[in-house]
Amino acid sequence: MMSRVLKLSLSVGAIMAIAPNNPVRTVVAFSVIGYLITYSVIPRVGPSFVKIGLKGRDLSKRPPNPELPETMGLVAATTYLFLMFGLIPFIFFKYLVSFGSLANDEVMSENYKTQYQSIKDNKLFPHNKLAEYLSGILCLQSTTLLGLLDDLFDIRWRHKFFLPAVASLPLLIVYYVDFSVTSIVIPSFVTDFPSGSYLLSVVNSFVKFSNHLVTSITGLSFRTLQTDYVVPDQIPKLIDLGIFYYVYMSAVSIFSPNSINILAGVNGLEVGQSVVLALIFLVNDFCYLLSNNISQAAHDSHLFSVIFVVPFLGVSLALLQYNWFPARVFVGDTYCYFSGMVFAIVGILGHFSKTLMLFLIPQVINFMYSVPQLFHIIPCPRHRLPRFNAEDGLMYPSFGNLEKPTWLSTSILSILDAFKFIKLEKDPKSGKIKRFSNMTIINLCLVWFGPMREDKLCLLLLAIQFIVGLCMIVFRHTVGPWLFGYDNLSWGVK
Amino acid sequence: MMSRVLKLSLSVGAIMAIAPNNPVRTVVAFSVIGYLITYSVIPRVGPSFVKIGLKGRDLSKRPPNPELPETMGLVAATTYLFLMFGLIPFIFFKYLVSFGSLANDEVMSENYKTQYQSIKDNKLFPHNKLAEYLSGILCLQSTTLLGLLDDLFDIRWRHKFFLPAVASLPLLIVYYVDFSVTSIVIPSFVTDFPSGSYLLSVVNSFVKFSNHLVTSITGLSFRTLQTDYVVPDQIPKLIDLGIFYYVYMSAVSIFSPNSINILAGVNGLEVGQSVVLALIFLVNDFCYLLSNNISQAAHDSHLFSVIFVVPFLGVSLALLQYNWFPARVFVGDTYCYFSGMVFAIVGILGHFSKTLMLFLIPQVINFMYSVPQLFHIIPCPRHRLPRFNAEDGLMYPSFGNLEKPTWLSTSILSILDAFKFIKLEKDPKSGKIKRFSNMTIINLCLVWFGPMREDKLCLLLLAIQFIVGLCMIVFRHTVGPWLFGYDNLSWGVK
Repeated sequence: MMSRVLKLSLSVGAIMAIAPNNPVRTVVAFSVIGYLITYSVIPRVGPSFVKIGLKGRDLSKRPPNPELPETMGLVAATTYLFLMFGLIPFIFFKYLVSFGSLANDEVMSENYKTQYQSIKDNKLFPHNKLAEYLSGILCLQSTTLLGLLDDLFDIRWRHKFFLPAVASLPLLIVYYVDFSVTSIVIPSFVTDFPSGSYLLSVVNSFVKFSNHLVTSITGLSFRTLQTDYVVPDQIPKLIDLGIFYYVYMSAVSIFSPNSINILAGVNGLEVGQSVVLALIFLVNDFCYLLSNNISQAAHDSHLFSVIFVVPFLGVSLALLQYNWFPARVFVGDTYCYFSGMVFAIVGILGHFSKTLMLFLIPQVINFMYSVPQLFHIIPCPRHRLPRFNAEDGLMYPSFGNLEKPTWLSTSILSILDAFKFIKLEKDPKSGKIKRFSNMTIINLCLVWFGPMREDKLCLLLLAIQFIVGLCMIVFRHTVGPWLFGYDNLSWGVK
Repeated sequence: MMSRVLKLSLSVGAIMAIAPNNPVRTVVAFSVIGYLITYSVIPRVGPSFVKIGLKGRDLSKRPPNPELPETMGLVAATTYLFLMFGLIPFIFFKYLVSFGSLANDEVMSENYKTQYQSIKDNKLFPHNKLAEYLSGILCLQSTTLLGLLDDLFDIRWRHKFFLPAVASLPLLIVYYVDFSVTSIVIPSFVTDFPSGSYLLSVVNSFVKFSNHLVTSITGLSFRTLQTDYVVPDQIPKLIDLGIFYYVYMSAVSIFSPNSINILAGVNGLEVGQSVVLALIFLVNDFCYLLSNNISQAAHDSHLFSVIFVVPFLGVSLALLQYNWFPARVFVGDTYCYFSGMVFAIVGILGHFSKTLMLFLIPQVINFMYSVPQLFHIIPCPRHRLPRFNAEDGLMYPSFGNLEKPTWLSTSILSILDAFKFIKLEKDPKSGKIKRFSNMTIINLCLVWFGPMREDKLCLLLLAIQFIVGLCMIVFRHTVGPWLFGYDNLSWGVK
């Protein structure tokens, strides 16, 4: 008890000492506080969660499997949200006023007067950034609330798939009111292509027609307001997607949380992949923040990303320690939605949602690989977790039974088998497929690399995620510029 | 099913038809939608709530008392929150752009260009109002989340009393960043009093010292930025409360939800008093909105109040129909906190929190009357609900036993008895107090007006609330100006 209080006060002291005029250091200090709070609260509230029925047994362990608390992601999410509230004055006021606690009264008064004048002139105070920040937190809080409802009421799959879209409403609405950039950069090979400009004009007319339709029904218009997300001397060709940009953002906010929710079932994997993704995001952000030659808008949006991701990393690391093999708590859908939405928000408000998709490639592959089972083209058992073998304590791929083979299911399985993307068990006499390894990349890893212990499996998947992420950062800034004819990150000195 | 869909589409149609350029009519239409959604969702989700243990028996009914779903306020609160998301583009964009769905493309373009220019010049777009609005919703969502946690985990009294303060953090922080008005009007009798100005300077020095202390610890300064909440030609004497203004706002946000939570236990009372309070707020707001001679700031803050209160009225009326005698659902602490916080937010952001306290006088009296029992000066049984008599079906006052009379408890009870504010049962021989009616205004009503049926009792309490509210509006604009030397509402034509 005493040591925790000491730790907490030390970290609060650390904020006060290192905070002045550096948002990055402030969020690091907040992140440490978030880690300490989450780490100390989880063991205290666990029994209460078990008591009201938020509990589950770990099936990948030798008996007796005690009941473990579920939905512990709620603690991490709530801590995160209240930290983000606390950050507001430091991010949006202090650095502009820029007085330290050590400055004397006169200096402070002077600073204050300048600041006040700037506020009155509407020059300095970033109200629009504040609205974005608030809408981001609002979206995360909606996600947490809906995730909790899902964990409590076991909402049906086809309903819960769309919950993140509902939760992302405040984000999209504030984006509409406040930001309204709905144009995207067109790859240069499209404009260079002979019929490219013709194609573009067709798309343009279609967008214009759809916008007009929506406007005449709702009275809300869709037009791009600003396009300052490019370096001035490298203006690329843009296309305005209008209403479809909102459909796209909504799709991103649906995909990101659900894809993390699908890649789950191994101790530590949900939180682990989120931590790895957070690290990848930070590497990418600091590529921008440490560069000398980027636009103010790009700088702001990556600083924004750092502000959201660093405290997330803090609370997630605390949760990971309890969720890592052998797990003492489960994180629940609440955490998966929450974590996926953090990335979606950063990608959307930072206007780099395509880069976000690159980082989520393992999740994208896992989703696409799962599609035949998710849509019941191929039979899908209730659980697709790897099978635990109590004798050697290792995880083996789990199998589904192909009881009623159809033309479609047989051919999908055969094609996957030809490329070694699945393990099939065939009837020795007739040669018909009887069983197939469940279609998740978790099972695929076990098929490829053989049975292994749960924590080794998790580490392997996390390593893949990390390597893919790093490769995608390189890809983004080498192949990307070649495709699009420009990059918003340049490393040369001006 | 069909008729509901029809109703819904009709009301959506109604919005589109009547909405242009009138925020009041838009919120009325949203309120209707909120009513319909809440009304149709509650019976559908009730069984799921019972299933996960959110249930209770109504003890004031004849057996068999079936288990009724608890925490149904969650449906109302969630509906309200998503309606408030949907309102954003209508409140913050449409009326400024001010194009209707019927306007032709050229007019729209023209409007749009003007609007765009204004946004670029940072003249027109109310980003600061948007931040306030978002922080209000954020605060309400935090309240709902914490209220749900309270209903789920049965948080201890001394902890849950402060939950609203935690939930109100985003509000206070945005108020600090964005608004920072920390001065209040001083009653003119204080300044007219000979030693008044001396007293003020003492208070001023104390505030300055405390501000300095907080600033030197946290680096955040507390100074009033703007004082445009007064009519220019009637500038009254102001005093800057600095940091104490935030303590005060925090106290308001703690008191308002808890006071509604305490005045409860009769079918329909929690929702009923909220509906009555909402009506009183609206009467007060329209006094301002229909007046010709008020400042822009006063107009804006009362319009803000209407925008928050009208949709709240819609969802509450739907909930009231299920919660009214004989109740089919209970509302839970979630609703009490949520509803109290709506009023606190409106009062705080509208800068009329003192008027809010006037409207809450029945709750204030109930709280003060309850204090001796809440702080265990006088014994407090687990439940202080009125007692149901199954024979005649009426409610009777409930009694507590004075087992260990102390000097303090006996004298409190005797004084209350002298003014007929309590019913005592004494030992016929010794004359010692044995039992006393529990100290809530609900029991007091039963003591004064005799036993009555539950719905009559509720109606009586609501009628008192309504009459007190109306009197307070009159008081506010007659005695208030006399005390403070000015009123921000004047009914004369300029």
